[in-house]
Amino acid sequence: MKYGNIEGIKVGQLFDSRKELAEAGVHAPTMAGIWGREYEGACSIVLSGGYEDDIDQLDYIQYTGQGGQENGKQTSDQEFKRGNKGLQLSCEYHLPVRVSRGYQLPNGPSKGYRFDGLYYVEKYERIKGKSGFYVCRFHLKSELEINNLEEQLISNLKDSYLPTPRKETKNERLIRNVKNSETVKSTYDFKCQVCGVKLDSPLGPIAIGAHIKRLGRPDEGPDVLENMLCLCPNHHDQFDKYSYFIEPETLEIKGLDDYKNKRINLRHKINPIFLEFHKKQFFNNR
Amino acid sequence: MKYGNIEGIKVGQLFDSRKELAEAGVHAPTMAGIWGREYEGACSIVLSGGYEDDIDQLDYIQYTGQGGQENGKQTSDQEFKRGNKGLQLSCEYHLPVRVSRGYQLPNGPSKGYRFDGLYYVEKYERIKGKSGFYVCRFHLKSELEINNLEEQLISNLKDSYLPTPRKETKNERLIRNVKNSETVKSTYDFKCQVCGVKLDSPLGPIAIGAHIKRLGRPDEGPDVLENMLCLCPNHHDQFDKYSYFIEPETLEIKGLDDYKNKRINLRHKINPIFLEFHKKQFFNNR
Repeated sequence: MKYGNIEGIKVGQLFDSRKELAEAGVHAPTMAGIWGREYEGACSIVLSGGYEDDIDQLDYIQYTGQGGQENGKQTSDQEFKRGNKGLQLSCEYHLPVRVSRGYQLPNGPSKGYRFDGLYYVEKYERIKGKSGFYVCRFHLKSELEINNLEEQLISNLKDSYLPTPRKETKNERLIRNVKNSETVKSTYDFKCQVCGVKLDSPLGPIAIGAHIKRLGRPDEGPDVLENMLCLCPNHHDQFDKYSYFIEPETLEIKGLDDYKNKRINLRHKINPIFLEFHKKQFFNNR
Repeated sequence: MKYGNIEGIKVGQLFDSRKELAEAGVHAPTMAGIWGREYEGACSIVLSGGYEDDIDQLDYIQYTGQGGQENGKQTSDQEFKRGNKGLQLSCEYHLPVRVSRGYQLPNGPSKGYRFDGLYYVEKYERIKGKSGFYVCRFHLKSELEINNLEEQLISNLKDSYLPTPRKETKNERLIRNVKNSETVKSTYDFKCQVCGVKLDSPLGPIAIGAHIKRLGRPDEGPDVLENMLCLCPNHHDQFDKYSYFIEPETLEIKGLDDYKNKRINLRHKINPIFLEFHKKQFFNNR
């Protein structure tokens, strides 16, 4: 699964069929509307009508997740599973989602499918739809300029090619190994390794798969489980801002009055060199 | 102060002097390296050498804040004040920072100043510099593709014009009213209105100026103090994911076992219609 723009594919490019869209690498499944995985995220959706709760304003989309339909009607509740879980992760990790529109939509091309660029899931919810059944609802916003998109897609250029978007590596930089984060969170059942708290919510438990030595420059930490912790947002922010450190040998929490002489909970292997690095930064910053 | 790209100014564009840079709206101060405000953020920096701790790798910059110098030498500690505070806020709120390089730098133009596009502050610290005094250190990364920037800026095009960057409204979307967030946090001395906790760190206390009715689509909440709360990251995430709501009339916290029959701390005026909106979403999501 590739996230972000596909080399050589322009925003506004047309495809005759779902098969062509798949062959181009834009959207591999030829039936499913969501191309996503439960432990990775979703990289692409195709809008082709069929969900009564969908709203399409071009730069903003209210998108209904998959499942619970029979003969085109919503007959049971949707869950955050499969593609829906993927889109949920795309929101959590700010992954870009390719959007293609089909001829079935008022805002779609007159025939076939059109690739309309990258969108971000800004919010999601699980809410009663018009049918009375629960649906997973995703709110997506285009990364392109609103006026630009409207001018280019609505008015005169509807079915033609649009200019190549500038290459965006910001997207790629943001794509971290979601699987590692999700794995470390599951290992601790979403409980913070420092305080043990588990933050529940109707949209799933809240925790952060945090890197001990930060990714990217200047720290250049690796994206591996041995460099990760499961933390609540509070202890994550405090860790990143050097409020405390974890003693590499004893795993004691140092710097927080409420956790004197306490150790972190540990169920997976951490490489102490990453804790050493963080400890050094802790002392550098005071 | 304008954030992001300036209409009509291209990446790679040259300016004869700091005065020209100021007149173009890229960087208003003609002396200071940072164009920023304590309660708003910083929108632009100029690199012109002069700080021994600076590192310039074009797409990555280690930038030393302002202050503590006499006759070009660091003679006292820097603090997170004025421009340094501005850059700190630009990190917290992910505001884009314009970067211009002067002729004094190895990576700069052969004369005058060159606008090198938008960067983001990825991390900051307060750390002992080479001089032995504390400096505020900011790590900035270019939003442009690394290869692109290197090819275009280093090799053959060093002093000429580069292509126009695609217009970026994502930046503008991200620019919220920092002042309101900072005001609501100060009002509560960075203590969470739900749990009363104040999260300290050597880089300043940690809290979130949270919007009750979210900004942007679909909710379209306004960026005003009456729509804001000061929350710790844990209670912010739980608020946004409908783990609890605040009863508009009584201000009681509903949905969290640990806070039964408790009210939020309130020292500023909140408009109850925003709490009503959030309460409705709370029930919609279960």
